[in-house]
Amino acid sequence: MGANISESIPHSVWWGWGDPARATPLSPEILTLLRERFHYNADAILSPPVALEDVVLGEGALDAESEELLRGIVGAPYISAARLDRVVHAGGKNTPDLLRRRGGDARDAPDAVVYPGSAAEVLAVLALCSERRIAVVPFGGGTSVVGGVEPLRDRFTHLITLDLSRLNRLLSVDPVSRTATFEAGIRGPAIEAALAAHNFTLGHLPQSHQEASLGGYAATRSAGQASTGYGSSDELITGLRVQTPRGELRLGGRAPASAAGPDLRELFLGSEGVLGVITEVTVRISPRVTAKSYGAWAFSSFEAGAEALRRLAQDAPAGDIPEVCRLSDAEETELNLAMSGSSSVRTLRRYLAARGLTHPALALFVWEGSDGRTRSRRRRISRLLRRAGGVWVTAGPAQAWDRGRFGAPYLRDELLGRGVFVETLETAALWSNLAATHAAVSGAIRAALVEGDAPCAIQGHISHLYPEGASLYFTFIAAAESDPFAQYARVKAAASEAIVAAGATISHHHAVGLEHAPYLEAEIGALGVRALAGVKAVLDPEGILNPRKLLG
Amino acid sequence: MGANISESIPHSVWWGWGDPARATPLSPEILTLLRERFHYNADAILSPPVALEDVVLGEGALDAESEELLRGIVGAPYISAARLDRVVHAGGKNTPDLLRRRGGDARDAPDAVVYPGSAAEVLAVLALCSERRIAVVPFGGGTSVVGGVEPLRDRFTHLITLDLSRLNRLLSVDPVSRTATFEAGIRGPAIEAALAAHNFTLGHLPQSHQEASLGGYAATRSAGQASTGYGSSDELITGLRVQTPRGELRLGGRAPASAAGPDLRELFLGSEGVLGVITEVTVRISPRVTAKSYGAWAFSSFEAGAEALRRLAQDAPAGDIPEVCRLSDAEETELNLAMSGSSSVRTLRRYLAARGLTHPALALFVWEGSDGRTRSRRRRISRLLRRAGGVWVTAGPAQAWDRGRFGAPYLRDELLGRGVFVETLETAALWSNLAATHAAVSGAIRAALVEGDAPCAIQGHISHLYPEGASLYFTFIAAAESDPFAQYARVKAAASEAIVAAGATISHHHAVGLEHAPYLEAEIGALGVRALAGVKAVLDPEGILNPRKLLG
Repeated sequence: MGANISESIPHSVWWGWGDPARATPLSPEILTLLRERFHYNADAILSPPVALEDVVLGEGALDAESEELLRGIVGAPYISAARLDRVVHAGGKNTPDLLRRRGGDARDAPDAVVYPGSAAEVLAVLALCSERRIAVVPFGGGTSVVGGVEPLRDRFTHLITLDLSRLNRLLSVDPVSRTATFEAGIRGPAIEAALAAHNFTLGHLPQSHQEASLGGYAATRSAGQASTGYGSSDELITGLRVQTPRGELRLGGRAPASAAGPDLRELFLGSEGVLGVITEVTVRISPRVTAKSYGAWAFSSFEAGAEALRRLAQDAPAGDIPEVCRLSDAEETELNLAMSGSSSVRTLRRYLAARGLTHPALALFVWEGSDGRTRSRRRRISRLLRRAGGVWVTAGPAQAWDRGRFGAPYLRDELLGRGVFVETLETAALWSNLAATHAAVSGAIRAALVEGDAPCAIQGHISHLYPEGASLYFTFIAAAESDPFAQYARVKAAASEAIVAAGATISHHHAVGLEHAPYLEAEIGALGVRALAGVKAVLDPEGILNPRKLLG
Repeated sequence: MGANISESIPHSVWWGWGDPARATPLSPEILTLLRERFHYNADAILSPPVALEDVVLGEGALDAESEELLRGIVGAPYISAARLDRVVHAGGKNTPDLLRRRGGDARDAPDAVVYPGSAAEVLAVLALCSERRIAVVPFGGGTSVVGGVEPLRDRFTHLITLDLSRLNRLLSVDPVSRTATFEAGIRGPAIEAALAAHNFTLGHLPQSHQEASLGGYAATRSAGQASTGYGSSDELITGLRVQTPRGELRLGGRAPASAAGPDLRELFLGSEGVLGVITEVTVRISPRVTAKSYGAWAFSSFEAGAEALRRLAQDAPAGDIPEVCRLSDAEETELNLAMSGSSSVRTLRRYLAARGLTHPALALFVWEGSDGRTRSRRRRISRLLRRAGGVWVTAGPAQAWDRGRFGAPYLRDELLGRGVFVETLETAALWSNLAATHAAVSGAIRAALVEGDAPCAIQGHISHLYPEGASLYFTFIAAAESDPFAQYARVKAAASEAIVAAGATISHHHAVGLEHAPYLEAEIGALGVRALAGVKAVLDPEGILNPRKLLG
């Protein structure tokens, strides 16, 4: 049945991902691959994280009066300027974030971390900070990979991070309407555990599931690995409660649809903490999953596979479409096969080659539900995929993906320590523009990642289908240069410019944060950015909320 | 196959609905019903519309310089202060609108009507009017029933109506991504005719289809009669081009989903002309309909039928759900049966009574598509409905509904002339709150509509299903009082207050306009209204766009 989605893990270690006790070490196959194919010197840990006490923190500290006032709102145990608290909240989880902290740099850390226990406390903290001009960075799971939780002071002397982890309760379930309301700080596994007790699931399972929070999903328009089936967070979220320096907003949740003016819920979905702090979220829920069916098909190329997925998304009966649909390009397929180390891989390669698939693109599907229909749904989609040129592999690769679905971020920690640079980025495009966008972005990453023909890998996959297009996700691997931050900036700029030039979106599900802010104007225009600033001027006139994020 | 959805009719007559040549006179059955059951004196036309030359117009006129400058932008033929143009644009199509114009009152008429021929002309008109402080009312099909196109001057001396009917072209079709881009003034039948040439349909068919425009759908979050299948306008629309006094916005359309900040498209969907003028709309399109299946089932009560629809919306395979799902309450069912005049009605009543359904609630369904699946989809849903207590009737009532689906507004014109007051209003609620909302709103209308136990009818139906709830639509009929405007205001206030008190939405698909503006704050809060005003301050700092609508 795949990974246990209700199993909670500790809040993430400060220098990397999740709970290091759960990481599996690099397999012999991966080490061989790194050595033989990429010629990386990856056999030993070269650069482990520094010790916590060696991390350099900034000098920033709240003045005593502000600290006292904040303590009065949340209570003494819930404001901290302790080293670990400040380091944990010094940034998010992209590769530069991790390299910085592993290397002992937390100079940007907040003056203090405040842990409110209720929406009313959040409201009071924001009013106080607005009055005293203290910058506030809202913090859910802290898993941003676009700089969304970096404590940037901008023009402010003082900055606190507002950690919402105490807002972690299920508030109500409406089993008739199939909705549930949670406090926003609840994390993925706790959401699923709470709903499982009522025989429901949210079904929102991003790779960050084990750490990320529901409020973070809302604030970033997160998409989960099964969003093709359940819908992405903006489709799942029906209501929001938001605190701002100027008061509270309660949006949506009263009806399944409304024509009562613009949808303000859609203004706070993706607002990334710059317009307010989301404290409650109402979501659509589905019957708990009791059955899964799996399948993998190979295609002659990424383009052929993408065309098959388009037919699936547009022509299959809506109820038959798999909850999880993924298609790796030939390079990702090749690396996944090489890494799997399974003895059956050689057999599979021969089997596919005999069918003309020498550089196959592998597609994985998972059907899940609460009834006996997953097998018949798979049967009907099998016919469609076969007609579209798909060659049946087995259920195995999809089952293996499901078991290991939350493991990839641990792999990165292992690689970073061995001098291997690995990062991801993503976009989405219309079907008519998908192959061109895939080629343009892959090409831009390749051209920027390494000098000359140094060994590197640029992998791409589709993981979310829509009637009019799909997501594109890229993973790139290279030997870390002496300045990996410059290497990252170079690749990120090249890829972002290629995405804009291709007419695709700067982010399908990672959001804008700091890193995509320069590209927002290309997407919504200077006037669109000004319209958002007009909203911010009403709700946060002092500009204390998450400075420099989203709007730049 | 139902009504011809590509057949264009002339722009609507000024005193009523559509093309009077297409209206069918009241049937003998309806006249009998009005006479015998309601004791209305409805046999003769008592109050026909006044002659056009007798309509009283306001004195407002543009100053010569403004008129000359506008003429310079759009060209001499495309600005008019002619009587008919001014009267046609003096308001929308709700009952007070029609009563006012039929009675010869167009004192609110705009100074002039401007017909721009391009987005650039719209932009230039808005810049000019902002500079010269001339109010601008955007006008698509003019079918608002909430006062959305009333030419209210507020603090402005001059007002023009901006009629977008010349912006009526299909600009592009992307058959691979299944999207199409239109100019916003194109009306329903022309949309379908243009798409039919490419073997596609939009599938958005509100009752106003024959008159309403695509830009109007977007500006009001319109839902169509088949929105359960195709999605409402906010789900169908993927991109917008909007002109404002401060410049142009191009939103969405580049990707099937995006996490690049708040979704500004959702800010202009439902913006009702107060934030900008929508000049282009990109929509999802579907394969042209080549097959339909119909069915009607009876339930023992509205509550039993609603419960069956909930199971359908939540538990049926998504691809099996009918494109059109409607459930009339017992009173609407009774009146529809009485009005149908079919000889088989008596047989049907006996058949249902024999099964214990003495006050049946009738549900109609239409499955439509481009393949052979409509019959098998119906078969599977039949089983679900039967298990939920539904008694199969025939396909007939659904077929009859489909043939006459655009006819109801003509019926109102006939009734108004005979002293019969008829109007509609609507909301949406969660399933857990649906029956209570239906009862509360029906009761409020009944209590406010007539004195004592004077004969009247309050009918309700569900016409749009969602996983977490459904729409509720009410039609009410009474003898017109001597002051029908006061009668309308009384009913409208009572119903709106009941909707707010029930925790439902003030509008599922009629929008806010003038009439629901007092209730918007109950829905999004005072701070939400201020946030929208913050956007307006950026885009329309002089406040010329559609004064007093939406934000009050």
